[in-house]
Amino acid sequence: MADPLTDTEQKAWRTFIESSWALHTHLEEDLRAQTGLSMNDYHVLVVLSEAPNRRLRMGELAGRLVFSPSRITYQINSMVKRRLVRKQPCPDDGRGQEAVLTDEGMQALEAAAPLHLITVRDSFIDLLDPEELDVIHRVFDKVRKA
Amino acid sequence: MADPLTDTEQKAWRTFIESSWALHTHLEEDLRAQTGLSMNDYHVLVVLSEAPNRRLRMGELAGRLVFSPSRITYQINSMVKRRLVRKQPCPDDGRGQEAVLTDEGMQALEAAAPLHLITVRDSFIDLLDPEELDVIHRVFDKVRKA
Repeated sequence: MADPLTDTEQKAWRTFIESSWALHTHLEEDLRAQTGLSMNDYHVLVVLSEAPNRRLRMGELAGRLVFSPSRITYQINSMVKRRLVRKQPCPDDGRGQEAVLTDEGMQALEAAAPLHLITVRDSFIDLLDPEELDVIHRVFDKVRKA
Repeated sequence: MADPLTDTEQKAWRTFIESSWALHTHLEEDLRAQTGLSMNDYHVLVVLSEAPNRRLRMGELAGRLVFSPSRITYQINSMVKRRLVRKQPCPDDGRGQEAVLTDEGMQALEAAAPLHLITVRDSFIDLLDPEELDVIHRVFDKVRKA
């Protein structure tokens, strides 16, 4: 059985989980109100915009977003309907599919990015000093790898 | 227009947002698989279990969870159906309602807590040294207040 959290651990954990949950909700609501995109939409657009030829295999995209196969299929199909991405067979493997960023998707990302940046700065980045920013990077890199 | 993120800010932000998003998903999936509860269910149970007489006004509960009025109503109605909480008129104000933890709700929380603790330790708390834990507490306290 795991040791109960100490008072210090408990306070840090509760503050982190409540505050980061509220931050995610705030980012999502702000982005939707300003652009109609969800955070998942936005994240897919960013990842594809940075990929070679703006395309990625579905499995690789799922890995990057930490999504299950069924969840990535649902997400991409929803974005295909809105013409933000399209699906096509992988050139080197007829059975696989890749997601490709469309021009409409790129335009949606370019329109959303400056608005999202303001929310990110105001609600997180500009509140931190350089040492805190460094610890956040280190801690969440460990968390991701664990 | 907001300044673009510096390389350092960008790396910290991307690592934080991707990793904390994946952590939330992991906590949710683990809790659901082990106990059938969602993180929102769990959070409501914890907050009510710590309240005087294990009851809180709906509005106060919404504030604690950073939920909108419609979202808290939906959440509590779902928990009423599962007998984890019940709703009753506020004793000092016939128009208001409060959510009350049931014995079944308290038992569900007591059964879930040791399992959830293992996930919390393994995926976050035990990865951090005391200085990192202190910075996490400080940073997310600032984020919550912003």
